[in-house]
Amino acid sequence: MRALMTDSELISSAIRSIPDHPKPGILFRDVTTLLGHALAFRTSIDLLCAQARTLEPQKVAGLESRGFIFGAAVAAQLGLAFVPIRKKGKLPAKVIRQQYALEYGTDELEVHVDAVQPKERVLVIDDLIATGGTALAALALLEKLDAHTVGASFVIDLPDLGGAQKLAARGLAVHSLISFPGH
Amino acid sequence: MRALMTDSELISSAIRSIPDHPKPGILFRDVTTLLGHALAFRTSIDLLCAQARTLEPQKVAGLESRGFIFGAAVAAQLGLAFVPIRKKGKLPAKVIRQQYALEYGTDELEVHVDAVQPKERVLVIDDLIATGGTALAALALLEKLDAHTVGASFVIDLPDLGGAQKLAARGLAVHSLISFPGH
Repeated sequence: MRALMTDSELISSAIRSIPDHPKPGILFRDVTTLLGHALAFRTSIDLLCAQARTLEPQKVAGLESRGFIFGAAVAAQLGLAFVPIRKKGKLPAKVIRQQYALEYGTDELEVHVDAVQPKERVLVIDDLIATGGTALAALALLEKLDAHTVGASFVIDLPDLGGAQKLAARGLAVHSLISFPGH
Repeated sequence: MRALMTDSELISSAIRSIPDHPKPGILFRDVTTLLGHALAFRTSIDLLCAQARTLEPQKVAGLESRGFIFGAAVAAQLGLAFVPIRKKGKLPAKVIRQQYALEYGTDELEVHVDAVQPKERVLVIDDLIATGGTALAALALLEKLDAHTVGASFVIDLPDLGGAQKLAARGLAVHSLISFPGH
């Protein structure tokens, strides 16, 4: 007899870990090998869709760039609109901006002002939640547009960095497919 | 009686045109409004998938960043692996690089060396084909990896800029969902 792999094990095993990237002491979780594994990628999208359905979103917002990959696939599969939340200077029409802290300095996210209507139910998707800085900036943008953010879903949670907890503390439904404690 | 809209009309009408962006004289075709129209977005993905099936790809390669949105949705729907082709410095493992010309200066695309195996059938997807500079750089990368690029699919073709013709001249199956002559 051979033990079957669970979906979580399938996804975890397809993620490549790169020591000391982008700098010494950081173990980088690389999802490109997950994308390169057809069954693991498809399983990830199916699981994200199953979670999404319980939240009944009207739109999916994806964070540039890896959040575009997972978010757009989920939106298309569920027949929902997709809202790209981008780094500054990339969107061509009228935007609102939100600053967020990086380890050194700050960066900005933008969204088109007409991308979401007031009260629309929006699900935020990204590949990974660490400290939560980017996800919180995305939430702030959606709040400025008077959207109803119903949840945030990630492929990977690094729970020791506390981002998922920060999002949950705002009353948001937070899901991840797999978790790497100790990161 | 009311005339039904064709799929092409649905997609065309969902694209926002922004005059003089990013500079005077350029009519920018903004796909974010297409993404924001659930039916038009879903229709685009369904049509790209129908075209893709005829080419029997094993992997879909998407070009950063808007090509991620369409390419990943197509890959997930077809149950295929997705290969991100990124701007320089974004991929964490070993890459190969290809320079391409911008209007002023040059930029570089990168792909992981292990993202594609020799002879694998790859379909390239991006949102728009104009002069074809980026798409040709992506093809060069896939060629260096000894992949078999079976085609290139785009949502929008700007035929007056000649990119689709350049790709077709290399024996590639080139498709686009809609075309804006005169751009």
